[in-house]
Amino acid sequence: MDISCIEHIGIAVNSISESLPYYEKILGLKCYNIEEVADQKVKTAFFQIGQTKIELLEPTSEDSTIAKFIEKRGEGVHHIAFAVADVAGALAEAESKGVRLIDKAPRKGAEGLNIAFLHPKSTGSVLTELCCK
Amino acid sequence: MDISCIEHIGIAVNSISESLPYYEKILGLKCYNIEEVADQKVKTAFFQIGQTKIELLEPTSEDSTIAKFIEKRGEGVHHIAFAVADVAGALAEAESKGVRLIDKAPRKGAEGLNIAFLHPKSTGSVLTELCCK
Repeated sequence: MDISCIEHIGIAVNSISESLPYYEKILGLKCYNIEEVADQKVKTAFFQIGQTKIELLEPTSEDSTIAKFIEKRGEGVHHIAFAVADVAGALAEAESKGVRLIDKAPRKGAEGLNIAFLHPKSTGSVLTELCCK
Repeated sequence: MDISCIEHIGIAVNSISESLPYYEKILGLKCYNIEEVADQKVKTAFFQIGQTKIELLEPTSEDSTIAKFIEKRGEGVHHIAFAVADVAGALAEAESKGVRLIDKAPRKGAEGLNIAFLHPKSTGSVLTELCCK
């Protein structure tokens, strides 16, 4: 698998508006985009830090996977996303090496990226996303 | 605070040797350094991905904070480290803005970096490290 960089780190939060002051006023980052991803039942907020983004994930519904994550583990890092040149190819390679997939094929995520998740059972409990433009 | 990039992501693992095949054979990354940090009671393994490193953290003692983290939460992302120009200055700025600090002053971490941690109570439950060379 040819990973070029860490595209983003997804962080589950109860409320983007309550989390923004930490990222903007303490860390000095600038939120450049807030976007709702309806099929994932989340609202997302993005900050760019060098090559990598921080993506805050706020649940928009009680049955959002982010709501369930927060209920079980509290706020915190939800996933790491690696930039690859070809998500479908990377998925096929991972599956051929015995990795359990959450997504068998790429789907559309925030910011128009093609995304797919590997199952944390195969990744040392780190929920892992592969993505490309 | 002037953050240039995400210097590394720290991931708690039970065993570096058992985790290496995922990072090397599935993700295609190359471990370039394995190092013990005695005062933190961890063994660390590093992979470079663009600007950012992944740092695997294996406890070397049952009373290591990493051992306690794994006991409580399982393996997974332990902390995010931001590269800053001046750790002491960034700490002072954070404290002046009401952030709770774990380290009041920089100390030496893996790879000879100057490091300090902010308390997750002030960072949306994301254990946050500031570091510089």
